[in-house]
Amino acid sequence: MKCRVCRGPAVIDVRRQNANYCPEHFLRMCRDQVAKAIDEFAMIRPGERVLMTVSGGKDSLMGWDVLRELGYEVDGFCISLGIGEYSAASTAAARAFADERGWPLEVVDLREEHGFDVPTAAHVTRRVPCSACGLSKRHLFDDAARRGGYDVVATGHNLDDEAAVLFGNVLRWDAEYLGRQLPVLPERNGFPRKVKPLVRLAERETAAYCVLRGIDYIVEECPMAEGNKHLGYKAALNAIEAESPGSKHVVYFHFLREASALFASRTAQEADALGACGRCGAPTTGDLCAFCRLQERTAGHEPVELKPRRKAPT
Amino acid sequence: MKCRVCRGPAVIDVRRQNANYCPEHFLRMCRDQVAKAIDEFAMIRPGERVLMTVSGGKDSLMGWDVLRELGYEVDGFCISLGIGEYSAASTAAARAFADERGWPLEVVDLREEHGFDVPTAAHVTRRVPCSACGLSKRHLFDDAARRGGYDVVATGHNLDDEAAVLFGNVLRWDAEYLGRQLPVLPERNGFPRKVKPLVRLAERETAAYCVLRGIDYIVEECPMAEGNKHLGYKAALNAIEAESPGSKHVVYFHFLREASALFASRTAQEADALGACGRCGAPTTGDLCAFCRLQERTAGHEPVELKPRRKAPT
Repeated sequence: MKCRVCRGPAVIDVRRQNANYCPEHFLRMCRDQVAKAIDEFAMIRPGERVLMTVSGGKDSLMGWDVLRELGYEVDGFCISLGIGEYSAASTAAARAFADERGWPLEVVDLREEHGFDVPTAAHVTRRVPCSACGLSKRHLFDDAARRGGYDVVATGHNLDDEAAVLFGNVLRWDAEYLGRQLPVLPERNGFPRKVKPLVRLAERETAAYCVLRGIDYIVEECPMAEGNKHLGYKAALNAIEAESPGSKHVVYFHFLREASALFASRTAQEADALGACGRCGAPTTGDLCAFCRLQERTAGHEPVELKPRRKAPT
Repeated sequence: MKCRVCRGPAVIDVRRQNANYCPEHFLRMCRDQVAKAIDEFAMIRPGERVLMTVSGGKDSLMGWDVLRELGYEVDGFCISLGIGEYSAASTAAARAFADERGWPLEVVDLREEHGFDVPTAAHVTRRVPCSACGLSKRHLFDDAARRGGYDVVATGHNLDDEAAVLFGNVLRWDAEYLGRQLPVLPERNGFPRKVKPLVRLAERETAAYCVLRGIDYIVEECPMAEGNKHLGYKAALNAIEAESPGSKHVVYFHFLREASALFASRTAQEADALGACGRCGAPTTGDLCAFCRLQERTAGHEPVELKPRRKAPT
């Protein structure tokens, strides 16, 4: 197995490219793919300040590393979600990564600073934990970007993530979600621009990047996501990809090229100015933003014991 | 397990309906679903003559049976494709079904009447056998409808078929195919209307219908389709359906409601009058229709030995 670039000994094959790489040229390929995504979708303009959302997993740590390698000014932001040992270890990994490099990282502890955690919010609202988790992340990312004066929020979503989300949206043909599933969401209504610079890289590649760069990341998946539909969609796509390498890339990028605009044009963009949340000041359509409503609902609740949702389907 | 309708002993559960049925009410539910599809998509108008394309498998025999039960005037049309023992057994099953009931069935033998068979065409054209098979079926169905003065060609595509085809089209975001994937294709340019009255029924239900009605059908799948992508898509959807009953119905019918028109409007309909094939007279854009070109390419070739493509993925 020889490196596509230098013909030296290869350590990894990338089947959808029908190519093998040595460590040096694999890392370069990964950086090139990130640079290409940034360029292709005009994600970050020169001189802009970027806030990378960091979980302690492979994708976000790789993203932070590559964006810095590419010369962008990037700081980190991490939320401790209160999901037992998983959150503690994730936050510790993010801190260790940032400390080793001397890169600025802000950590927000959901319970300490906002009075609730994800398991408790799931219990109180009787909804899946991923719902309170996503809502909290979106709110706190936007808030941190506004407070810190960042132009762009970057997340670690990779090709597998985006293809699986697309698959779920397609299973329901949810035109609104399909119209919004883009690698860049422009700044508007007081929300910062959101970008996904890893969309050209598969999960396996972000993991390999971290291993080859000596980045210690949390391998464990979130215990509350076990058995959720998103993981089922990933498994279905993995079976397709194994038969036809490149399928995930095709389904996602052909969607962006051929179909995305059809749904976006159908979905009316609420371009109207939003009001300000009466409690935190965030842009919102109501009197209180969804995050503050969640905070009010969960106020005073003791932390609930961590319960995984259920076993993953076998 | 009790029947949803009469509370008598049930013999089958339909998970996406969260219902069980006794034989009588299961058969009635199937007929009702076919009637609903015909009505919903204006498939057949009163007094029209229908040509049911019959393979000898469960779907097409069920379709013929139900359409007759619903009072339509339906004759059968069957192509012997020359796929070894599979084609011989399929044609025999179609003949036996028609003969028992005294219903008119036309059988066309591809090799006897047109000089080639599917395995030979696949060999000569170096394409997958499903390609020559689909082309031949479309051509001969249209031809039979014109010769016999039928208003409508009905095929046995069920919900599993349509969901899997949709899945394949979505994996490539092929806008033209997506715009044409409808349960009814209107009559135009000299082609008869095509309808799929079984789209509201799953494969398992068409099989159960045949068993409960005592219809002898060919259980074997086409040996040349083994390992094709369509079967992989069916397997992926079966995994999703097992986790979330109703997923196939939702993906297909939400597509029709939410997305189909977006693609159809993007795909320019060639409404221009077509010319006539110089050999067979069928409507075509070129001098010769695709079927006659295939016939010319395969002319004089000895039948090739039947070779399954490869083993199904494990």
